[in-house]
Amino acid sequence: MNKSLMLKQASVTIVGAGLMGGSVLKALKHCDNKPKKVTALEIDAEVLRKIKNQSLADIATDDAEAALSDADFVVISLYPAQTIKFIKENIQYCKSECVITDICGVKREVMDTVPMFIPENISYVGGHPMAGREHKGFDYSVNNLFEGCRYIIDDTPSKGRDLVEEFAYTLGAGKIVNASAADHDEMIAYTSQLPHVLAIAYMLCAEDRNVDDFSAGSFRDITRVAMINDEMWSELFCENRDMLVSEITRLQSGLKTLEEYIQDCEIEKLRERMKKAAGLRESIKELK
Amino acid sequence: MNKSLMLKQASVTIVGAGLMGGSVLKALKHCDNKPKKVTALEIDAEVLRKIKNQSLADIATDDAEAALSDADFVVISLYPAQTIKFIKENIQYCKSECVITDICGVKREVMDTVPMFIPENISYVGGHPMAGREHKGFDYSVNNLFEGCRYIIDDTPSKGRDLVEEFAYTLGAGKIVNASAADHDEMIAYTSQLPHVLAIAYMLCAEDRNVDDFSAGSFRDITRVAMINDEMWSELFCENRDMLVSEITRLQSGLKTLEEYIQDCEIEKLRERMKKAAGLRESIKELK
Repeated sequence: MNKSLMLKQASVTIVGAGLMGGSVLKALKHCDNKPKKVTALEIDAEVLRKIKNQSLADIATDDAEAALSDADFVVISLYPAQTIKFIKENIQYCKSECVITDICGVKREVMDTVPMFIPENISYVGGHPMAGREHKGFDYSVNNLFEGCRYIIDDTPSKGRDLVEEFAYTLGAGKIVNASAADHDEMIAYTSQLPHVLAIAYMLCAEDRNVDDFSAGSFRDITRVAMINDEMWSELFCENRDMLVSEITRLQSGLKTLEEYIQDCEIEKLRERMKKAAGLRESIKELK
Repeated sequence: MNKSLMLKQASVTIVGAGLMGGSVLKALKHCDNKPKKVTALEIDAEVLRKIKNQSLADIATDDAEAALSDADFVVISLYPAQTIKFIKENIQYCKSECVITDICGVKREVMDTVPMFIPENISYVGGHPMAGREHKGFDYSVNNLFEGCRYIIDDTPSKGRDLVEEFAYTLGAGKIVNASAADHDEMIAYTSQLPHVLAIAYMLCAEDRNVDDFSAGSFRDITRVAMINDEMWSELFCENRDMLVSEITRLQSGLKTLEEYIQDCEIEKLRERMKKAAGLRESIKELK
């Protein structure tokens, strides 16, 4: 690969046009840093038709060989297991020196597996744009999905890294974060997966209760991500189960302590924990 | 009390001008259904000065007798223990036939106690506007705090009830909900107190971790109420501890089940739980 390859000079192929891939296509259409050529590879005929109607790609096809053979940059927008399967089955069509990235929400599995079956002259750079919605599929894709998001890129040295960073900023990412697959998966277990587990457990307690009459902002906020894509998240949870179970255990321990303080009316201990939590939340400036 | 007393004909006294009392004063100033006279009773001289400067009341005073002696309607905007103490110490100044309401977030304690020391000709109606902010105090009060909120009113039959309902709608409440103190406290333990407990326990797990680089919407939403008023919430938690502990226990049990499914990679069971949770969340239309 030419080290100085810029997105503008690249033929880019987006594999999969669900919420994420569709949003990538839309963001690229509206950006100031358009690639030389954009190809969409998607197996759903209805989605392909929409991509064509909305002029979101120069080529929209379900033919992997045609989509990959002249691509300089391949963005795989599939779930983790599909991502691994896709690369394994189609790496033969990718040209020498091309750069491949993915958007998977867990990274150890892909980073441990993919490098085993790609040739040395192809650069694989794991990525994870921290953006999403409660609903899945192309119809929910939007051009500003990645606006201001953290975009995590695997910190393994790689020739394709600069291109992926440029791509991330082109989508609108607010910050690039470099992390190892293990650090990523540990932090994501806490910052993203655990809130989803809590939302599900919490929401299920509402069964047969008239919660609607007694709900305000805190209920709305904690339950928002209970509107979950069960196909994707069940896979993500299981692929990251060691780290996620460890986070659930840690949370349960903290919950137990608070429960005891409440049971025993330990007002001062409760206030001390509340002050600590409030201080931690306040310190995360960008989230205020 | 004249059953047909309307807010427009009433002398109203707001006791306490923190976030809630201050917001009541501001809402009344901007509403189309202004009371005949508004009095603010507040012990903080600086807050009294601000109330006067902003012309939020006809009278702003720290003299309870002066504030209460001609009031037709008294709105106590204090924490629960203070509310009980205030009524006990100052009921002597309230005139016959007046209506008293409160805004306490737990209701059994006030509803069990207050009626014991008020005369029969005074009407006490428990209330709970489900509105709040992460910050406390008059400086955070706003005229639209109650806009669209659920306003829960104790369902004990009372002469003053119509006036409190009119007051709630005047503040901007979206829906009046009638509930017994026990039903209120049970539901609030789940819909409001538990999300706060979870936010605290969850936030405390962030200590010594660089969460900022790995956070997105789900983290922001679950931690928002970790910015908590520790003085008020520690009191609310302890006053409602039986019901709150029961909710924490129930949640922990659900969490344990999910943890086991994740540990054992029970994808289908996980998906079934997720679908159930998503369906419950979707069914709460107004929160979408």
